[in-house]
Amino acid sequence: MIREETGSEMAKKMWGGRFRKGMDKRFEGFSSSIAYDYKLAEFDLVHSLIHTRVLQENGILTVQEANRINAVLEELLKSIKDNRFKPNLSAEDIHTDIQNRLEKKIGPLSLKLHTLRSRNDQVVFDEKLFCGFEASMIGKLLINVCEVLLAQRRKYSEQPFVGYTHGQRAQVILFSDYLDAYFYMFRRDVHRVVNYTESLQAFIGAGALAGSGLSRSSYERAIKDFLRTTPVYGKIRPVVNSLESVADRDFVIEFLGLLSIVQMHLSRLAEDMILYSTQEFNYLDLPEEFCTGSSLMPHKKNPDFLELVRGSSGRINGNLVSVLTILKGLPLAYNRDMQLDKEPLFSSVETVKEELTMLKEFLAGLKLKEKVIEQALTDETLYATDLAEFLVLKKVSFREAHDIVGRMIRYVEDKGMRLSELPDELLISFHRALNQKEMQRIINPFNAVASRKSISRKAPKI
Amino acid sequence: MIREETGSEMAKKMWGGRFRKGMDKRFEGFSSSIAYDYKLAEFDLVHSLIHTRVLQENGILTVQEANRINAVLEELLKSIKDNRFKPNLSAEDIHTDIQNRLEKKIGPLSLKLHTLRSRNDQVVFDEKLFCGFEASMIGKLLINVCEVLLAQRRKYSEQPFVGYTHGQRAQVILFSDYLDAYFYMFRRDVHRVVNYTESLQAFIGAGALAGSGLSRSSYERAIKDFLRTTPVYGKIRPVVNSLESVADRDFVIEFLGLLSIVQMHLSRLAEDMILYSTQEFNYLDLPEEFCTGSSLMPHKKNPDFLELVRGSSGRINGNLVSVLTILKGLPLAYNRDMQLDKEPLFSSVETVKEELTMLKEFLAGLKLKEKVIEQALTDETLYATDLAEFLVLKKVSFREAHDIVGRMIRYVEDKGMRLSELPDELLISFHRALNQKEMQRIINPFNAVASRKSISRKAPKI
Amino acid sequence: MIREETGSEMAKKMWGGRFRKGMDKRFEGFSSSIAYDYKLAEFDLVHSLIHTRVLQENGILTVQEANRINAVLEELLKSIKDNRFKPNLSAEDIHTDIQNRLEKKIGPLSLKLHTLRSRNDQVVFDEKLFCGFEASMIGKLLINVCEVLLAQRRKYSEQPFVGYTHGQRAQVILFSDYLDAYFYMFRRDVHRVVNYTESLQAFIGAGALAGSGLSRSSYERAIKDFLRTTPVYGKIRPVVNSLESVADRDFVIEFLGLLSIVQMHLSRLAEDMILYSTQEFNYLDLPEEFCTGSSLMPHKKNPDFLELVRGSSGRINGNLVSVLTILKGLPLAYNRDMQLDKEPLFSSVETVKEELTMLKEFLAGLKLKEKVIEQALTDETLYATDLAEFLVLKKVSFREAHDIVGRMIRYVEDKGMRLSELPDELLISFHRALNQKEMQRIINPFNAVASRKSISRKAPKI
Amino acid sequence: MIREETGSEMAKKMWGGRFRKGMDKRFEGFSSSIAYDYKLAEFDLVHSLIHTRVLQENGILTVQEANRINAVLEELLKSIKDNRFKPNLSAEDIHTDIQNRLEKKIGPLSLKLHTLRSRNDQVVFDEKLFCGFEASMIGKLLINVCEVLLAQRRKYSEQPFVGYTHGQRAQVILFSDYLDAYFYMFRRDVHRVVNYTESLQAFIGAGALAGSGLSRSSYERAIKDFLRTTPVYGKIRPVVNSLESVADRDFVIEFLGLLSIVQMHLSRLAEDMILYSTQEFNYLDLPEEFCTGSSLMPHKKNPDFLELVRGSSGRINGNLVSVLTILKGLPLAYNRDMQLDKEPLFSSVETVKEELTMLKEFLAGLKLKEKVIEQALTDETLYATDLAEFLVLKKVSFREAHDIVGRMIRYVEDKGMRLSELPDELLISFHRALNQKEMQRIINPFNAVASRKSISRKAPKI
Repeated sequence: MIREETGSEMAKKMWGGRFRKGMDKRFEGFSSSIAYDYKLAEFDLVHSLIHTRVLQENGILTVQEANRINAVLEELLKSIKDNRFKPNLSAEDIHTDIQNRLEKKIGPLSLKLHTLRSRNDQVVFDEKLFCGFEASMIGKLLINVCEVLLAQRRKYSEQPFVGYTHGQRAQVILFSDYLDAYFYMFRRDVHRVVNYTESLQAFIGAGALAGSGLSRSSYERAIKDFLRTTPVYGKIRPVVNSLESVADRDFVIEFLGLLSIVQMHLSRLAEDMILYSTQEFNYLDLPEEFCTGSSLMPHKKNPDFLELVRGSSGRINGNLVSVLTILKGLPLAYNRDMQLDKEPLFSSVETVKEELTMLKEFLAGLKLKEKVIEQALTDETLYATDLAEFLVLKKVSFREAHDIVGRMIRYVEDKGMRLSELPDELLISFHRALNQKEMQRIINPFNAVASRKSISRKAPKI
Repeated sequence: MIREETGSEMAKKMWGGRFRKGMDKRFEGFSSSIAYDYKLAEFDLVHSLIHTRVLQENGILTVQEANRINAVLEELLKSIKDNRFKPNLSAEDIHTDIQNRLEKKIGPLSLKLHTLRSRNDQVVFDEKLFCGFEASMIGKLLINVCEVLLAQRRKYSEQPFVGYTHGQRAQVILFSDYLDAYFYMFRRDVHRVVNYTESLQAFIGAGALAGSGLSRSSYERAIKDFLRTTPVYGKIRPVVNSLESVADRDFVIEFLGLLSIVQMHLSRLAEDMILYSTQEFNYLDLPEEFCTGSSLMPHKKNPDFLELVRGSSGRINGNLVSVLTILKGLPLAYNRDMQLDKEPLFSSVETVKEELTMLKEFLAGLKLKEKVIEQALTDETLYATDLAEFLVLKKVSFREAHDIVGRMIRYVEDKGMRLSELPDELLISFHRALNQKEMQRIINPFNAVASRKSISRKAPKI
Repeated sequence: MIREETGSEMAKKMWGGRFRKGMDKRFEGFSSSIAYDYKLAEFDLVHSLIHTRVLQENGILTVQEANRINAVLEELLKSIKDNRFKPNLSAEDIHTDIQNRLEKKIGPLSLKLHTLRSRNDQVVFDEKLFCGFEASMIGKLLINVCEVLLAQRRKYSEQPFVGYTHGQRAQVILFSDYLDAYFYMFRRDVHRVVNYTESLQAFIGAGALAGSGLSRSSYERAIKDFLRTTPVYGKIRPVVNSLESVADRDFVIEFLGLLSIVQMHLSRLAEDMILYSTQEFNYLDLPEEFCTGSSLMPHKKNPDFLELVRGSSGRINGNLVSVLTILKGLPLAYNRDMQLDKEPLFSSVETVKEELTMLKEFLAGLKLKEKVIEQALTDETLYATDLAEFLVLKKVSFREAHDIVGRMIRYVEDKGMRLSELPDELLISFHRALNQKEMQRIINPFNAVASRKSISRKAPKI
Repeated sequence: MIREETGSEMAKKMWGGRFRKGMDKRFEGFSSSIAYDYKLAEFDLVHSLIHTRVLQENGILTVQEANRINAVLEELLKSIKDNRFKPNLSAEDIHTDIQNRLEKKIGPLSLKLHTLRSRNDQVVFDEKLFCGFEASMIGKLLINVCEVLLAQRRKYSEQPFVGYTHGQRAQVILFSDYLDAYFYMFRRDVHRVVNYTESLQAFIGAGALAGSGLSRSSYERAIKDFLRTTPVYGKIRPVVNSLESVADRDFVIEFLGLLSIVQMHLSRLAEDMILYSTQEFNYLDLPEEFCTGSSLMPHKKNPDFLELVRGSSGRINGNLVSVLTILKGLPLAYNRDMQLDKEPLFSSVETVKEELTMLKEFLAGLKLKEKVIEQALTDETLYATDLAEFLVLKKVSFREAHDIVGRMIRYVEDKGMRLSELPDELLISFHRALNQKEMQRIINPFNAVASRKSISRKAPKI
């Protein structure tokens, strides 16, 4: 036991030998992390399961002692997987909580577990495993969204749609082009997630900052043994540089950065769909189960899901700034400031997971209002570029063609006419190759999209 | 009742008449805000207490009905002040939770409360009152910290101290100068808090965005009546421009911006004290009850409180970024994205309050190691500027004086000597006015600080 | 002169006596600030003009010397006001540039100017005056924008308009309500600017961190004399706490925070107007001189001004984060990191000034498409709340009224009908008070806006 | 020509056919990007060189025309590589500048170049090539820094050093451990850079958003031909999804995110070295050519380079926030807001390149003060953990060992003694295995570092 005063809170701390006074109560709450770091319980148990074997290899634990400790740890691990684990909020952190549980089960032997290791080593190890797991999960959710986009694409494969730049009608596209755009964004996100998880290496054995007397080879053997039965925990390695290992939070920033790109994509999709579901655009029928009404205005069907997704950029960007700020100018090796990286990390992970899970359902329930879109596609300015392109093929320099079409549009605007109504004699005055028949061929959504040879419309694959 | 299907979750929503499908369960959780906006309960009750009287003034409620409703609301208000209020986490938000409680008590009459008002109006009203209260509280905590700084200043009033620029020893100062520096920072924060609270106006009557048929004069009377008995709730006004009122979150950003300056001050103080409590500086003895030990290294006494304060800049800056990001490019009037302003707001307020509360105790427990400081003050480079100043008074141009002292320092560095040991014949070679006696007068901490006439050392007042 | 090696770059530094090696050339460029801090030239001259008098008061300069120095400084000040001042980019910073110019004009006497003062004191003094001037200018530009909003309001005083929440049509408002919303936002910004400038105090006399032997009373007299002739430079005071004074950058963060709110307002206005100028909304005719075309698509008229304004939130928020990051955990007193506060400060000030200047012209050129708006106002769902409000006055509880109207809307949606077409016998089945005549009175934009008694529509004043 | 009014500014725009009014002069300046996007000139020429061949393949240009155009483009490209290219700041952007230069050389034929392409396509293409080049350059600079770290490590290979956690002395390490820590951080940065450049694909052929009639196969051939002679430009591909391609700025955020991690590492190194070069720590002798003095205090040698590096985190983090903010909620496809991504991108790239270039020289000039370090290593608390570890090997449970050592430290602190002086009889009262001889073996820096078996000290490789 660390202290004589059994029963007191301090007795349960994993440190304290040289301290004369107890912690300030308020500070105890302020510095406690159990309220959130309990999420690392599973991974902390992995650290302990390996560490026990390392201690055994070094003769600090007997085989029997090691087995007895690990049996309890395995049991705790199972309770987590079965969702039966509830953190004890009066513990200082998850490491202490687990230690206390062990002590309750096996008494003084438990005190041997935390031999020659440090929470500095544990927490970075735990967080890396956490990040690996969560990144994989997010990768899967992204793939789910990609699959729904593909399904919607099959449903609306030949549907022309209005393409925008600067929020202004630009050219006719296919709705599948639009869906594919997001497909490719999310697929890039999947690649980023995969690269990220592949780069993760969880080190063990750094001690507080300087390593310990436990041999590297014992770590190698213990890790190998552990991963043989449970390879799911990814890359675990004996520490190389111990200072760097406990000080490293690159992987948190990298993950938060990656999520900020996913979130940016989500916010753009949300904005698009909010626009398209206004009464003015009116292209989309949003699934009602993701909308809400108003307590005052009886007619409202608000795209709240999309708004909350758009607004979540605040949280995700804020979390990234948070961790970047914390790490700025932090000297080596471990500093307590680093404890504050966990809440932003968990918050961003949780938010993106929720968004992606719902987005899949949301996108599956999305319906296009083909009639409205058909009407919009009669806007002749959408074909202005196609008209210019036609002239180019008639050997007009593009900038001249651009100018001719510009003047034609100005003309019909002034006269309140339509391009497709212009009589041949007038058309010819703009360019000799123009006539009503050609105009009608050009001003047609199907012809417009068919004429674009520079792009690929093959259905993409995940 | 909004829906026939009594008992269902939807029946408890404050909207839904036109909806055919229930909300997606997961989305219901995602969009729910009760888990945090319950903190607004008190202020939401204020809105309702006033609104009831407005409805009565407009003949929509009888006096008896209004009294009956307000009796329940007052009771709820009391339960909050007595710390007995527990939010019902299955409600959509705090407005709905309160509405449901009212319904339980007085049945269908309760449904009349939410007449011609909107949660858009309520939430901004509630948040403004919240901000006003919390800002005042933070103002008081800042004043507490100022007072401890003054007390420590009295204790160490004539204690010389080492002043730094660029992390390098610069000139001798008084420890009271150092304490006053933070005093003035925090006092400026108090002024900012006061300006902020004075600028807050909580509007009532905006409806969802466009006002309502309830008369402005009825609002005026109801507000006046309410504030007569409970002026503590600050400035409440009938809405002027309803669009602007529901769309406004300036006051959240302004508050978060103000807190980011307080936090910046805290982080600088923390950094200074972390430095001063290293074994190398060793100027300060930190109160043990705000330090922790290491689970591995038995000798450690770590300044965790200060580290967590320094690291909290991450959270505070992240929260500001969060709300700025949310508001960027948000069209008028209300959008659901705005719901996400609350968690960052509450988080920053809570963190700064905790920090200030503990800081007061921490600073009160701080002790100076006078011996160590005395030793540090024998570093003669600390008097280099005083030496140059002496030469200036002997009619040397300052840049020459600067150059002479620079060369003197280079000289003693090269020779491994001390300035105060230089013999008169050598001193005179640098400048005729120099001699050992003058040097000893100059190289003295008390003389150094006494010679600074440009600054004021009167004890500051709050 | 600081160094013997006249002519070398180092000879021109304001320090260097103890240094043996010259600066690394690349580092010289990296650490130089003249490329941007030349903007502080005017204010740095003010510091010098006062400092000269302080030196004279303390007997370090004779009256003749002081006059001779100040004559040159005054001349330089005039060259700035006449726009003839060009920074010498080979100087280290603006302080050195000015010092060098002085030296060219009056030789060795110039070296006496920088006696017992520090660039730490100068730069914070300069920046505060800069902030004061620029904030006032931004205040004026905001007022200009407010005035154009008032002019447009007079032009469209009785024009009904569509009000939105969640991007969805909500209720009929007046276009003047809409304009007023931004008026009130910008007017709040004006108040913030005024509060800010009033709180600014530029201190002089801090030295590097610890004050100097120059008497406070000499500062008082010199400042008083200076401000008598040129009160425009605002509040200048002898320093109180010198440590705090050189370490203070609160006023930079506060200014950047204030600008981030102005910018947020600008981004919301921009977003609204981008929306309203889409072909789908089509409410606004944007002034062509603030739009651009496409090099490919001949028909495009893009709202580039608005997009750049919206996007400028990136720059403004980034600049705020930048300075908050720099200041985090910076120990007292001055650190070189602080030099990096200037580029973000100047960038935000410049951007907001440009935006406001153009916005005034832009808003003046804005035209409403009344026909399109008239058409939009025939959307009957815009009157749903008015309908519910009507029922409330017929003693229906609001939540029942809400439900009735919800069901009416669902009914007409299903039947493809309009509310105003529903026959009396059907209307009565929803509520006995409903009939065609009442419906037509309610479904009328002018009646709708006239019925809102809770808000004020008096033309606001600046 | 686009307009009749040759000579006017508008005539030089690449659009404008439908416009009646010229651009507002101030807006012209506000929206112009040439002042910074000239940095893309080289890559824009690559786009044009390929596009010319595509037009030729599609029969829009003859071979002779294509050759004539490309000859001029090649010449411009050479002028850039020879550093002779000066942007014409009156052009709207770099695309227009190059177009104008082409026109000057070959007259009307030049107008054919911008046929069926869009600046939306060009700018994203250009930026991707820019990012690829700059990332490679940064990769090389990082490797240079790694090499200097290795060189210093060889120099100080067996030098013990003080290891810190929480800013407090923790355990003895080797200085090479410390250097390696940063080596591994920067090497991870190299890997991130490599992954990043490998993931970059520059697409060509997207048009404004919807592709064009130019065939994909013609793009394939033209790209292949181009890359055959100049493979240095990396991966260039015919566009797949054109919407996504013009809307994509992921690669900017990813690059800025990557740089924010590099910068975070730099800021930590800077902070460490600022600390270690204080008079109190005094472990390092910084190369004088990277330090500066004070204009007031003659003795100062300030670590300005390190401070500016630390402070640059502000700029780098701000730039990341800037682009994340810009992209938030931006609808598809291109919006003018995106133009504002370039300044932050260029700023972060430039800053990190400068820092790394100087850091190499700085680190090469760094010297350790072995004497000071030797003295620091006599601090016995540095061996507390080694002492506990010794007890563990004597079969004491670690938590008991921790407690024993804690009490020993408390004892010597109270008595003002040293651990190594404790007499055997006292030592034995703490634990029977303790005696003076063992204590002296344990309290020895070389033994301490030699005893750590869990870490690897092999010299790392790049």
